[in-house]
Amino acid sequence: MSAVDKIVYRPARDELAYTFGGRMPVAHLRSGDVLQVFTEDCFGGLVRGPADLPSQVCRMPYLNPVSGPFFVEDAEPGDTLAVHVVSIVPARDWGISAAFPHFGALTSTTHTATLQPPLEERVWVYGIDRQAGTVRFEATDSDHTIDLPLDPMIGTIGVAPGGFEARSALVPDTHGGNLDTPQLRAGTTLYLGVNVHGAMLALGDAHARQGEGEACGAGIEVAATITFIVDVVKDEPTPWPRLETGTSIMSVGCARPLEDAYRIAHHDLVTWASTLTGLNVLDAYQLVSQIGRALIGNVCDPNYVIVAVADKALPAARAPYGGMHERMRQLATGQR
Amino acid sequence: MSAVDKIVYRPARDELAYTFGGRMPVAHLRSGDVLQVFTEDCFGGLVRGPADLPSQVCRMPYLNPVSGPFFVEDAEPGDTLAVHVVSIVPARDWGISAAFPHFGALTSTTHTATLQPPLEERVWVYGIDRQAGTVRFEATDSDHTIDLPLDPMIGTIGVAPGGFEARSALVPDTHGGNLDTPQLRAGTTLYLGVNVHGAMLALGDAHARQGEGEACGAGIEVAATITFIVDVVKDEPTPWPRLETGTSIMSVGCARPLEDAYRIAHHDLVTWASTLTGLNVLDAYQLVSQIGRALIGNVCDPNYVIVAVADKALPAARAPYGGMHERMRQLATGQR
Amino acid sequence: MSAVDKIVYRPARDELAYTFGGRMPVAHLRSGDVLQVFTEDCFGGLVRGPADLPSQVCRMPYLNPVSGPFFVEDAEPGDTLAVHVVSIVPARDWGISAAFPHFGALTSTTHTATLQPPLEERVWVYGIDRQAGTVRFEATDSDHTIDLPLDPMIGTIGVAPGGFEARSALVPDTHGGNLDTPQLRAGTTLYLGVNVHGAMLALGDAHARQGEGEACGAGIEVAATITFIVDVVKDEPTPWPRLETGTSIMSVGCARPLEDAYRIAHHDLVTWASTLTGLNVLDAYQLVSQIGRALIGNVCDPNYVIVAVADKALPAARAPYGGMHERMRQLATGQR
Amino acid sequence: MSAVDKIVYRPARDELAYTFGGRMPVAHLRSGDVLQVFTEDCFGGLVRGPADLPSQVCRMPYLNPVSGPFFVEDAEPGDTLAVHVVSIVPARDWGISAAFPHFGALTSTTHTATLQPPLEERVWVYGIDRQAGTVRFEATDSDHTIDLPLDPMIGTIGVAPGGFEARSALVPDTHGGNLDTPQLRAGTTLYLGVNVHGAMLALGDAHARQGEGEACGAGIEVAATITFIVDVVKDEPTPWPRLETGTSIMSVGCARPLEDAYRIAHHDLVTWASTLTGLNVLDAYQLVSQIGRALIGNVCDPNYVIVAVADKALPAARAPYGGMHERMRQLATGQR
Repeated sequence: MSAVDKIVYRPARDELAYTFGGRMPVAHLRSGDVLQVFTEDCFGGLVRGPADLPSQVCRMPYLNPVSGPFFVEDAEPGDTLAVHVVSIVPARDWGISAAFPHFGALTSTTHTATLQPPLEERVWVYGIDRQAGTVRFEATDSDHTIDLPLDPMIGTIGVAPGGFEARSALVPDTHGGNLDTPQLRAGTTLYLGVNVHGAMLALGDAHARQGEGEACGAGIEVAATITFIVDVVKDEPTPWPRLETGTSIMSVGCARPLEDAYRIAHHDLVTWASTLTGLNVLDAYQLVSQIGRALIGNVCDPNYVIVAVADKALPAARAPYGGMHERMRQLATGQR
Repeated sequence: MSAVDKIVYRPARDELAYTFGGRMPVAHLRSGDVLQVFTEDCFGGLVRGPADLPSQVCRMPYLNPVSGPFFVEDAEPGDTLAVHVVSIVPARDWGISAAFPHFGALTSTTHTATLQPPLEERVWVYGIDRQAGTVRFEATDSDHTIDLPLDPMIGTIGVAPGGFEARSALVPDTHGGNLDTPQLRAGTTLYLGVNVHGAMLALGDAHARQGEGEACGAGIEVAATITFIVDVVKDEPTPWPRLETGTSIMSVGCARPLEDAYRIAHHDLVTWASTLTGLNVLDAYQLVSQIGRALIGNVCDPNYVIVAVADKALPAARAPYGGMHERMRQLATGQR
Repeated sequence: MSAVDKIVYRPARDELAYTFGGRMPVAHLRSGDVLQVFTEDCFGGLVRGPADLPSQVCRMPYLNPVSGPFFVEDAEPGDTLAVHVVSIVPARDWGISAAFPHFGALTSTTHTATLQPPLEERVWVYGIDRQAGTVRFEATDSDHTIDLPLDPMIGTIGVAPGGFEARSALVPDTHGGNLDTPQLRAGTTLYLGVNVHGAMLALGDAHARQGEGEACGAGIEVAATITFIVDVVKDEPTPWPRLETGTSIMSVGCARPLEDAYRIAHHDLVTWASTLTGLNVLDAYQLVSQIGRALIGNVCDPNYVIVAVADKALPAARAPYGGMHERMRQLATGQR
Repeated sequence: MSAVDKIVYRPARDELAYTFGGRMPVAHLRSGDVLQVFTEDCFGGLVRGPADLPSQVCRMPYLNPVSGPFFVEDAEPGDTLAVHVVSIVPARDWGISAAFPHFGALTSTTHTATLQPPLEERVWVYGIDRQAGTVRFEATDSDHTIDLPLDPMIGTIGVAPGGFEARSALVPDTHGGNLDTPQLRAGTTLYLGVNVHGAMLALGDAHARQGEGEACGAGIEVAATITFIVDVVKDEPTPWPRLETGTSIMSVGCARPLEDAYRIAHHDLVTWASTLTGLNVLDAYQLVSQIGRALIGNVCDPNYVIVAVADKALPAARAPYGGMHERMRQLATGQR
């Protein structure tokens, strides 16, 4: 991680990808490279006002486009790709949320299938004030408004899956993908196990903010300019996505039912904490049981997501991945 | 809520209850009464050191004892019982946690039944320093220690269920019970729908602190002296337990699988927020989707628990239950 | 099991029970006694035609009444109660089914909570021809009719739960209860673990027939005259309900999510088969994996039910419970 | 469906596929073609005796190979591919089953993650007597043996998924895949919605027989010679896999948790039955609730599978897909 190139990538519309895996790379990166990437919103930018109902203006499978994939040199199966998020800047002064037919947590869906008709489809347009750092909710049936803190996040980021698979960008799983957790904000380092030569990183689906669980099926969806740094941890595999900030380490579980996402995330956090500290696994289990936080990412995507969090002030813990987060954080300082 | 009596109740061992419902009251309360109740820990105080394995010293169903039930005058089916937690003081200078055979989130259980043998049973003893406000984790297989913030909570509190039922104190459901959420700390008001004449409130199972999800199946279990105030909101039913603090309103869902707990909690929060603000239900759904937090209580009890949280700074919201929380909070000020 | 008394019991309306546990016995039985009991339908007999919408004519918790409980002499905790079903005769020449608001498998419910309105409530009346052995489906929106085989079953049968609990008769669990499996027909022996002195057996909720899963939330609900024999297997506990017929042994699991019901039922069947045959547990697991059937009871009640079935032609198997089923079957021969 | 060519295909080892989608076709077919295909067993033929532990001789992702894909002319998105199974003949005189580490229904897994060690890995070898029509179970820890009926089935069969995806052959979903239901035997017609030009049919993973749910994670796994006929139903989409036999129509749901597989399968069966009969949807829901069977395919794969079954003797029903099953059945008569 010595040389730092800043690479700017803005995909043409027909360069957008809709899967992780199964695509040729759009650019080659080296460890330490800084990327500034434009990402379209989850509707492909086609929903611009209350009359643009997603079910009418969008067409499956052209939802949730990602920019990429980027081939990362030296990334091989068995390694870990580190991605440090430097900044996420909404590209327009508005964002969109919507209630889709048969999609979301408080409706029956294609999978939790019932004979009931769908909820009414509706679009909310949020004004974004980047100076003030706010997004404005405006009710559609009354004149209530409220300004909410702008808290940009990356909804979808991942690498190519293994086993010759190509997965829809709507799916979160071991390869990352549509994780939809607010923890993926600027300052966070994401670790992903590499499954194929070159890792094939792609990302998109930024949100101006999102509640925990993404109940209605959408955050405040925005196009964005996302700046990040990549690096490779050689010969250290990562079974499920992990996150690191200045204060916390986090393990991500993606599954249905939701308790399996909890189990995966906490199994990984307990065994990881055991490795970092030298604590016996049962002792680590006990400690995580008393200090752990369990954040819900989404309860609407094909897999649900839970993020298990532990404070880095674990007894006698060594830095994860050889101190990668701290090095990337310092590198990022000059990039904002 | 005018007259304030302080009633002190310390159960004899054979007065402890193991169910909600099916028991005669131990005392009668009136609205506005302040109670100071001793509660035993979830092991009935029988686990006092590493050699006291719960499966040997405890005997089913004599686990998770509650103190009560208390008959609350004027509480009738269709009303809501309000319980404001004034203080929770650990009664001893130690607390206990344990990994039980086939109980907890990271083991197979009697219900997620597998053919694997159980994890090793083990007891952790935590020293409590009330002056410093800490509890000390000590590893059992190495010499790691770490001081964690003391953050006392009530694990189990509820009323008698309806339908002539009596439910084990291990179960969380519409009547409250073993909710196991850290949100049940001093300063919080709990609202429970009344199912039977007199409500029949009982409580126990205090924790010195607990991680989200209570992964190993136990918090740091303590006997405690719990002080609280009761009141009755007439003619206002409450379908699932709700909480209120100075900054938040919360709805509790109890179910398996965990996504159903999420759905229940958020369905209640959305419809409640709609009532409080006058927002149309779809607008409230949208707003909660962007501002809501979703806290996991436990992923180990017979029902799992999720707490849906919204900031009270909702647009044009009126105070829940006619301002009950604020009145109780003021009443509590003189009681600490 | 020598003396055979035939006891006839027909409850007055106010003798009907709505829980397992928490009730005084209505009669005392001895091993070998034959009982002929009248059971009301799950609506308490109040739905008699298309205009009698359950949500209007029934009132919670007065649903799913059971007749009993019966105190069985010599039945103590740790024993097993055996109940052999001799006959189930519909008491009227009609049966009822219905789609309830927010109840059933293909609708959102109070627990799989969504913001969608309920499906339309509707009542179907089936004519029963006992001579022909048929029940007649008549469509409500067209003139389609079809005669279906009459296949009477007991929907709800159980003992008092342990731990001082009283559970709604709508719930299936370790104590039996609302199992809603078509396997509970004449000729079947049911084994239930005894939790309290006298076992406290109760039953009701007969169906003229039912599909697997009881998708709409109701079978063809009938009042019935049910004849059965009781006996006690001393000192042999039964962890979950079990069934035996001339050809099969079956284990019942009750849980949510549905895979946990599968796990419970198959864990019990594998370990039971291992005990009966002397097969190592892994060998029994393998054998059940290749010969087992997995029948779905219901996917609508508070717990879902799966029945794991193995053919009795297991290698070198001894008769379950000391040959109880065969003895009861012979006793039943004279009773039909 | 006039001309009938019989095409024989036997893949070289390096022609085996491990995904649905993402592969070039190995042959082109026309409607009415008869194919005779060799399929390897799920272990790629590498497990041949008790000492060949799958975790040692097999290597991810080289599990569950399928033969194909076959390009079917005229099959376009929006059409339905019909596959009639003529015969399934085990290719060797032995079959294999196994208990894998952390795979199966009665063990914790990578997703139902616990801290327990795996069950012991073990291989069972079954002798197959095609003359007698039996497979012989031999216990590994004792000398029990039992002959079971040979009942060959196709474990894995599907088309390419849509949305540019390529899915592991271990996964069952809308495109078919690893359905693992014993209903896929000779005489059954399978209907699959076409997602891509040419459909891209592939199949493998035959079982000599399998219990419902495939509890240990494997059937009696065999290489096989499978003969089938293909045809295309133009302009009639099929949302989830469907089956038809001489007596039944069936809808397949693939999901976790298992109740969602139930919901999907029954939602499809109810709406399909409504279309075939002209019954109102609520009437069809009621009828299926009383006559439906619900067969469990597997409770071990990445998605669980339930097959909803209705007798074809529905009132006034017309033949599904214009009588395709009957025509294919007659065509098959000359092929056995």
